[in-house]
Amino acid sequence: MSRSSCMKKERQAILLEKLEHDPFLTDEELSEMFGVSVPTIRLDRLELGIPELRERIKNVAQKNYSKVKSLQVKDIVGELVDITLGQGGISILETNSKMVFEKTRIIQGHYIYSLAESLAIAVIDAHVALVGVANIKYKIPVYAGSKLVAKAEVKKAKDNKFIVWVKISEKNVEVFRGKFILVSLEKI
Amino acid sequence: MSRSSCMKKERQAILLEKLEHDPFLTDEELSEMFGVSVPTIRLDRLELGIPELRERIKNVAQKNYSKVKSLQVKDIVGELVDITLGQGGISILETNSKMVFEKTRIIQGHYIYSLAESLAIAVIDAHVALVGVANIKYKIPVYAGSKLVAKAEVKKAKDNKFIVWVKISEKNVEVFRGKFILVSLEKI
Repeated sequence: MSRSSCMKKERQAILLEKLEHDPFLTDEELSEMFGVSVPTIRLDRLELGIPELRERIKNVAQKNYSKVKSLQVKDIVGELVDITLGQGGISILETNSKMVFEKTRIIQGHYIYSLAESLAIAVIDAHVALVGVANIKYKIPVYAGSKLVAKAEVKKAKDNKFIVWVKISEKNVEVFRGKFILVSLEKI
Repeated sequence: MSRSSCMKKERQAILLEKLEHDPFLTDEELSEMFGVSVPTIRLDRLELGIPELRERIKNVAQKNYSKVKSLQVKDIVGELVDITLGQGGISILETNSKMVFEKTRIIQGHYIYSLAESLAIAVIDAHVALVGVANIKYKIPVYAGSKLVAKAEVKKAKDNKFIVWVKISEKNVEVFRGKFILVSLEKI
């Protein structure tokens, strides 16, 4: 076997491992990890039969939507990749150039807010929940093409009131955090 | 002249006055004011040559967009019907059934948030501004078809930091309020 095909086999083996550990790595992130071009990563994925990120996210999200009580699937912004009702969840939004401020190419805040708000509602163990109060902080501007990972944690659930914290990161750097106070309508 | 045509003339005269005072009254609001049906109001408007609400809002908004420095028109949610840069402004959003939570028919919070956020940015007298922090409160659920009027007031402007309050009402009842702390990028 030639040296380059040997390297390729090795790279593909590690790539499989990496994606098993974190199925939501982008082709760009993988290309940086291995020091190869994005088209090379795409070819690797093709040869290994690994679908593109969007598909991988959708496949995982599909299994989670049935667990959500408080929202319909169409009302969730981003893809829900993990959820434990009443405790927390994770959703992912791939940003694109339609979401930017035209002048700065920075993602408009309300897309990030919507990702956080709908996740905060989705993790609530109630049939209907609405946001009453939200205190939010945008920490770092986000540009198109970034993959935003939102993590929600239910901090308090008492009677018809819930407190949920949502933190959004890009490449493990926190870009947004918010505290949401929600009210379930069914018990009012 | 018959009694009914007399009443109609009178109603149309008052209708003109009402719309001069507040050009953003909906046909539904006018119908309630006069105790006549919505089709009657529409007919009145037709006879008086008054365009429908959407057109009236757009006509007024057109004159305001050129004043905005911090945003492109396409980035503004709702129609900007009044603005004094560095001081405040008013925008209007007509909600529709595409904006609701499927389960409850209540308008999703992030549409209301987006109206507030983009107005808060628009009123800033700077070329580029981003939200840093927002503290918001949803006071009353809003249903599709409602006309939301957002009013923003610049409370503080110092160096590259701005504090803007936004209050959103439906039929003069406050449904949302938010405090936005914004940062202008140009002076950083």
